[in-house]
Amino acid sequence: MSKDHAEWLGFAKNLAITAGRLVIEARQNSVFVRDYKADHELVTSTDLAVDQYLCSSIAERYPSHRILSEESSPNMNLGDIADETPVWVIDPIDGTVNFAHGHLHVAVSIGLFIGQQRILGVVNAPFLGECFWAVKGAGAYCNDKKLSVSGAKELRNALVATGFPYQKTALSPILERVSRVLHHCQDIRRNGSAALDLCWVAAGRLDAYFESVKPWDMAAGALIAEEAGATVGGYLPKIGAWPEVVNGEGLLVSTPALYDDLLNVLDISVPF
Amino acid sequence: MSKDHAEWLGFAKNLAITAGRLVIEARQNSVFVRDYKADHELVTSTDLAVDQYLCSSIAERYPSHRILSEESSPNMNLGDIADETPVWVIDPIDGTVNFAHGHLHVAVSIGLFIGQQRILGVVNAPFLGECFWAVKGAGAYCNDKKLSVSGAKELRNALVATGFPYQKTALSPILERVSRVLHHCQDIRRNGSAALDLCWVAAGRLDAYFESVKPWDMAAGALIAEEAGATVGGYLPKIGAWPEVVNGEGLLVSTPALYDDLLNVLDISVPF
Repeated sequence: MSKDHAEWLGFAKNLAITAGRLVIEARQNSVFVRDYKADHELVTSTDLAVDQYLCSSIAERYPSHRILSEESSPNMNLGDIADETPVWVIDPIDGTVNFAHGHLHVAVSIGLFIGQQRILGVVNAPFLGECFWAVKGAGAYCNDKKLSVSGAKELRNALVATGFPYQKTALSPILERVSRVLHHCQDIRRNGSAALDLCWVAAGRLDAYFESVKPWDMAAGALIAEEAGATVGGYLPKIGAWPEVVNGEGLLVSTPALYDDLLNVLDISVPF
Repeated sequence: MSKDHAEWLGFAKNLAITAGRLVIEARQNSVFVRDYKADHELVTSTDLAVDQYLCSSIAERYPSHRILSEESSPNMNLGDIADETPVWVIDPIDGTVNFAHGHLHVAVSIGLFIGQQRILGVVNAPFLGECFWAVKGAGAYCNDKKLSVSGAKELRNALVATGFPYQKTALSPILERVSRVLHHCQDIRRNGSAALDLCWVAAGRLDAYFESVKPWDMAAGALIAEEAGATVGGYLPKIGAWPEVVNGEGLLVSTPALYDDLLNVLDISVPF
């Protein structure tokens, strides 16, 4: 691990841990306020407060870096960023609906990419006491334990996670994929946090995960899964302006032995 | 609470807590063996060992009572049981797939009914440190905290849990209901333990839960939800030979303000 990478990792882990404490405190004290964005997507005042904390901390420590954040810069143009500029991609609370309902699957997600490479990812799940992290080429960890994907080899024994969009008009092909996965695999899980689903694939608790998600949902988790041995790819063309490494359109992340079969299951243009 | 009920409750809580320790130890030591029942339903040696522990403990303490257990007496005939005989309904591990994959949503479920009345329910989630329990007419609790359903009043803000059967031929109407719920509610959760989904409705972490389940999945949880203020009913005719109080066919459990709307959403014979 290079000196830069080690320093960035230490910084990101500290940020994610501190942000996790803010999330726990907000729920314990019930101090957050609910609001709704477009498509009736829930956001709380805690999302905004933690976003503010993360963005100001990064800007202060690394003023030359860029920040792509779900809450404060979701529409920034990444096309004009020089290839060597580090870009932090953050989601202050991945699993906001879970947070507001008192569930445990809630995460602070912090990723960093440069040009066409994911450099590091930290996903901290404060209510579960688990901080997942990875650096390119250096493996993936949960707290201090090295992670490795499951050894599943048969579709019918596979446990597969997915999620559903807030935008209801997009549901039809998604439900067809859910139906095909249910018919061919052991079962589906819908835990409510994409970042954590990716980490659970890394930990072998899930055999695969598929969903169309935004950069802040997957930038950190995709690297953690990849460094734990998962195949990271997709079942849809990568439309949209996001750079490939943070483009979550039709994301499929799987233990390697199941990847090709799952691609076929998810390709609804062809019977399976 | 009557003296009998208090004694039975204390006994059931002790059983569920001890069984929960067995479940944790089995996973920590990775000593369990996987097998598959009909419809590729997973069962582990830990399900069987915990079932054996629960059944022998109940039979020793209350030899005149009857036991309906997922693993050892799933086909027993309840029709010839006298109305005043207490019947214990147990699931040694609700969430076996979760157990085998290292997930946290795993529960030991112990219910007791007499004639047409659910008397008590204990659902212990050992990996989460939460023991849910209720006695008819005496409220529902998580550890020592009294439970109350959510105050949700709008379908579009509702978080609804469900599950999927092992039998793949039954999937089509289920997927249609999932589609309708996704179109009209905030989102769906699929956590993988029916007993715990019912307790989470009781705790207000979910606004509703629907699924066709077996008596051992719902005998305890349905009473816990009801005692926390939930409406317990169904969206399908109660076919099958199970007594009404443990018949989980088309089970719908919801915070009261949403119940009628959800019945309409789940009635796929009529557009909504």
